[in-house]
Amino acid sequence: MKRRDFLKVSAAGAAATAVASPAIAQSSPEVKWRLTSSFPKSLDTIYGGAVEMAKYVAEMTDNKFQIQVFAAGEIVPGLQAIDAVTNGTVEVAHTAGYYFVGKDPTFAFGAAIPFGPNQRQQWAWFEEGGGNQLYDEFLKKYNLKAILAGSTGTQMGGWFRSEIKSLAEMSGVKMRIAGLAGQVMQKLGVIPQQIAGGDIYPALEKGTIDAAEWVGPYDDEKLGFYKVAKFYYYPGWWEGGVSLHVMINTEKWESLTPAYKSILQQAAARALLVTQAKYDALNPKALKSLVANGVQLRPFPQDTLKAAYKASHDVYAQISAQNADFKKLYDSQTAFRNDEYLWWQVAEFTYASLMIRAARQRG
Amino acid sequence: MKRRDFLKVSAAGAAATAVASPAIAQSSPEVKWRLTSSFPKSLDTIYGGAVEMAKYVAEMTDNKFQIQVFAAGEIVPGLQAIDAVTNGTVEVAHTAGYYFVGKDPTFAFGAAIPFGPNQRQQWAWFEEGGGNQLYDEFLKKYNLKAILAGSTGTQMGGWFRSEIKSLAEMSGVKMRIAGLAGQVMQKLGVIPQQIAGGDIYPALEKGTIDAAEWVGPYDDEKLGFYKVAKFYYYPGWWEGGVSLHVMINTEKWESLTPAYKSILQQAAARALLVTQAKYDALNPKALKSLVANGVQLRPFPQDTLKAAYKASHDVYAQISAQNADFKKLYDSQTAFRNDEYLWWQVAEFTYASLMIRAARQRG
Repeated sequence: MKRRDFLKVSAAGAAATAVASPAIAQSSPEVKWRLTSSFPKSLDTIYGGAVEMAKYVAEMTDNKFQIQVFAAGEIVPGLQAIDAVTNGTVEVAHTAGYYFVGKDPTFAFGAAIPFGPNQRQQWAWFEEGGGNQLYDEFLKKYNLKAILAGSTGTQMGGWFRSEIKSLAEMSGVKMRIAGLAGQVMQKLGVIPQQIAGGDIYPALEKGTIDAAEWVGPYDDEKLGFYKVAKFYYYPGWWEGGVSLHVMINTEKWESLTPAYKSILQQAAARALLVTQAKYDALNPKALKSLVANGVQLRPFPQDTLKAAYKASHDVYAQISAQNADFKKLYDSQTAFRNDEYLWWQVAEFTYASLMIRAARQRG
Repeated sequence: MKRRDFLKVSAAGAAATAVASPAIAQSSPEVKWRLTSSFPKSLDTIYGGAVEMAKYVAEMTDNKFQIQVFAAGEIVPGLQAIDAVTNGTVEVAHTAGYYFVGKDPTFAFGAAIPFGPNQRQQWAWFEEGGGNQLYDEFLKKYNLKAILAGSTGTQMGGWFRSEIKSLAEMSGVKMRIAGLAGQVMQKLGVIPQQIAGGDIYPALEKGTIDAAEWVGPYDDEKLGFYKVAKFYYYPGWWEGGVSLHVMINTEKWESLTPAYKSILQQAAARALLVTQAKYDALNPKALKSLVANGVQLRPFPQDTLKAAYKASHDVYAQISAQNADFKKLYDSQTAFRNDEYLWWQVAEFTYASLMIRAARQRG
């Protein structure tokens, strides 16, 4: 063999090795990501969902794929979480889409819109009703890919310093409420206020605001609102079912192996299940404790709900006329929601209804 | 170096290799399992859940962990699925616990008991209310480890050839219904019949039975019951939320690496989410189609529900007095259920209630 031929063979051999070796390495490469949460650690259920997800990913990959979770403010403030992903500062955020309606109201469909589907219906829309595809298509503009990774169920309507007995009494109420719900509330005469979680309590205590909404019994009790506002309204008609997502930088997503993509998907699904289970397990205890502390539970007055329903759909018509993305997701989710409630009223609702009657009879 | 020393060194080297190499191999060993489903392929939503789970497991491991799914009857009949796992014929089954109440009524808590928690509440009990631990503790006797891997939501109450207007009219009705629900129905005067899925239609057509329950609109429509029994009752109070599990041979489970255990857990969680989403997405369309085909929807009469509620709790008291395992799971799940409905009536139920009213007003 001439030396030249030998080199050719070697080169071919090396090339073959070069092909084979990345194929092995690729199946479980070392990947380290940083996740910025929109939530503080004190929201242990929601914030904890990202921690759970990261734990599952590490377990499934023998720690080769590691996601380090940072609370809101540790890298960027909670409401800048997706900007940090879009521009590549971090690989992934854990957040609620409706925090970003200021950029585009279409973001809201990732979390909740007033009078939207309930939690299970919303999951069904994402998974089997085209929601995931439509949301991802919209998010491409922001260089983001979303995966469902948490939920809260129906939230509460919030804390009021004075009792509200009719729609007329909503007029002039200064309420901490943001996003699309704030726009709807404004149509009811409410003066919506944007206040960060940690600043709600002092504002409510001083009377700078008259009302505030947060999440539900478990999270609300920890912030102590019941000490300064006795009336706790329900339901949170603007949050009939709230979903959270991990939002991933699309290039970073595409850089993952097929196995790692799947691992992230399944870990997020389990985080969704666990987060919802935690809320469902913790809220009853917190509700009992709040009532024992003198909290007055009140349903929103019927005229308020009716007006809010109409105002919400007016807002949707206005936005849809100007925003094709919003219209596309709204039309899809609303058609799905309408079908869902036709079915829900038959089996799920009548079952819940009879079980609640039985619970009341047990006392 | 003497030849003997050389051999010693070689042996040490070989030992070192033997230690290092399994450590690498162990992180993603080749594993091939067979899964026997209790369901026929025609139940595409439920049967499909196991197929989805197997797909995720394969994706996440680059096909190194493969689970081959067999429909009911391909290896063993559907109702012998767990026997095949207990005795090691196959590694894993996909099934509903209540199929095995003949062995022990405690199995029912894995799927559903009459007037139990609804679907989301049941998940919360499994994940955060101690249900998983209690169920696994019970299943040890059968050499089984269970993981939640599918659900249906509230099922329908079934198909009746004649209208039932009161409890008195339930007396003497021959109904295809099994398990604990069959025992309760018997206390209402019903004559419960055990008939396999494929044999229900001819029995209902010939009038050998007067009524039959199966699942819900999507699955029921495919079996064509509406052609031979016009009255479709709701809700299925014996199946307020039905869960499915993969049940794994405990030695096979323990033989998995920690990564593979986690992979199976997360894949099952996603299968749960996807199966429920499919039911929630498919049932509304099927319900509309059934109604268009002349099906008469009927709620169970109030006196029937009341009597059934009482009879169920009588049955539970009887079994609890004799069966410590049943009592342990019953006490845990019932306390959890009672707390859940206290909370459910506030936010979730009033939200569903107002959305259903709005749906009716839209027409």
